[in-house]
Amino acid sequence: MNEFDLIGRYFARPARTALLGVGDDCALLPSPPPGEVLAVSVDMLVEGRHFFAGSDPRALGHKTLAVNLSDLAAMGASPAWFTLALALPGADAAWLAAFSGGLFALADTAGIELVGGDTTRGPLTMSVQVAGHVPAGGALRRDGARAGDDVWVSGHLGAAAMAVQHRAGGIVLTDEMLAVCAARLDWPEPRLALGLSLRAHATAALDVSDGLVGDLAHICEQSNLGADVDWLSVPVDPVLQTLPEAARQRAALSGGDDYELCFTAAPSARSAIDALSDELGLPLTRVGIMRPGKDVTVRDAAGHPLDTRQGGFDHFSPS
Amino acid sequence: MNEFDLIGRYFARPARTALLGVGDDCALLPSPPPGEVLAVSVDMLVEGRHFFAGSDPRALGHKTLAVNLSDLAAMGASPAWFTLALALPGADAAWLAAFSGGLFALADTAGIELVGGDTTRGPLTMSVQVAGHVPAGGALRRDGARAGDDVWVSGHLGAAAMAVQHRAGGIVLTDEMLAVCAARLDWPEPRLALGLSLRAHATAALDVSDGLVGDLAHICEQSNLGADVDWLSVPVDPVLQTLPEAARQRAALSGGDDYELCFTAAPSARSAIDALSDELGLPLTRVGIMRPGKDVTVRDAAGHPLDTRQGGFDHFSPS
Repeated sequence: MNEFDLIGRYFARPARTALLGVGDDCALLPSPPPGEVLAVSVDMLVEGRHFFAGSDPRALGHKTLAVNLSDLAAMGASPAWFTLALALPGADAAWLAAFSGGLFALADTAGIELVGGDTTRGPLTMSVQVAGHVPAGGALRRDGARAGDDVWVSGHLGAAAMAVQHRAGGIVLTDEMLAVCAARLDWPEPRLALGLSLRAHATAALDVSDGLVGDLAHICEQSNLGADVDWLSVPVDPVLQTLPEAARQRAALSGGDDYELCFTAAPSARSAIDALSDELGLPLTRVGIMRPGKDVTVRDAAGHPLDTRQGGFDHFSPS
Repeated sequence: MNEFDLIGRYFARPARTALLGVGDDCALLPSPPPGEVLAVSVDMLVEGRHFFAGSDPRALGHKTLAVNLSDLAAMGASPAWFTLALALPGADAAWLAAFSGGLFALADTAGIELVGGDTTRGPLTMSVQVAGHVPAGGALRRDGARAGDDVWVSGHLGAAAMAVQHRAGGIVLTDEMLAVCAARLDWPEPRLALGLSLRAHATAALDVSDGLVGDLAHICEQSNLGADVDWLSVPVDPVLQTLPEAARQRAALSGGDDYELCFTAAPSARSAIDALSDELGLPLTRVGIMRPGKDVTVRDAAGHPLDTRQGGFDHFSPS
């Protein structure tokens, strides 16, 4: 058995919904249900850029799929299938078992099927492409926000960014804080159920991967609006409560890696969204309002704008 | 303008068939036409493994899409859309212009649309996922060959592998030979029109990316058959005619990177396939026959089996 066969062993599973799965030139997939269209997204994670060398392979398997499922959630799409392209420095059985274990555990939870892949030798790099189904005309796009809409955020923000800073050596967290922050960074939970429910309420949505301010700016840009955010309303992760306010602001507003959803909705949807929060057991918090203009302004308790020029996490910035 | 914007500028184009193109969490795609299903494939190309450092970026843009279109061709699918994940050591405008130029020139020729992507800093790595449409039940799978079917190959084999050997320093080709061989390696031409036409004739097909013997072995394995190949019938590229026979055998039988189609068809289809060859202006050559058994046997002029144990190109072999 050569190393290629070895790798195939960890990823080959019988086709479930696919008409033809892994092992031919192409996989064959059934069309979306009548009235629905295909939503697709792709991400690439590179060692040393998106995760540290020596990261737990089980968590990597989870995260490489989770960040893509998060894009489906942000679109209001239901997961259907995905492909995996993987470059590995070598074929390590224990690493592959753990990586594929983390990947498939999440795939099974989310109800999504691996239908094709490519493995090669190279610097550790994972690229997943996901596809989901969404009613034609019912997707949660970035360009649908209206002036006067509320801006909402799911869950809590900032913990993942603190784990990044700790691992990069910029700060030292207590063991208790690190455990919570690292779990948020390494095991993000795609908000799939929320995305499906928001089809009925949200006017625009995206996932917070690069920081709330930078990501909300994408909704502003594509909806030709501006946004005012109230800093005191932002759901900063409780684990950060002992940190200085500047650190909390930086982590929660421009830290990245949260994979929560940010969405806009008409004020008339407030009670329905509050009820949805209870139903899902997931905090949904109003943090601001869409208004005419451009750009995102975050105001402190006194109503003064915060300096958020550092913006989101730019993969090509000299960080 | 930050580097991210710069990169987006080279890949952003108005959506054509996509309902929503680059720039949201997901692209939205129409379903395949009624009666057709989706065929998808993914490949990853890594610098130093699949191409040499310093390769012409225009050729790289072409090739990263071409190798995926070749998978659609091998399935008998018509190209529909693709995504691109790209890791780059830096944002170099000239490199990006050339790379995207090569990519889109082929995309326009093939009638396929870029609908999503991801760019990040990292060791130069490209991953394309293509999707095409094929009639339900009409795809060219690997498991459909029958005993007594002819084995066919399109075009000529072996030239690309000689260019690899030259660049790796293993051999020295004349300038004239290198020009021909390098063109085959760097600018492979996906056999899309052939794939579509073969829906009517072929019982099984795949593209020759890892060498004829290794790839035909996949058809054998999945069709539960063996194959006999007649070495003298194999369409070795004419540019190799002055090389020793052992070198020609190695290049044409297990060299890889040809991106021609290997397919099987009933003997009753011979005249139709010959006519197709004339129509496409592309050699289609009978090289052997499917038979009960396992494995691929290549016989020389005297009927003696050649040693082809070196097999295909294994990305994890210590080559």
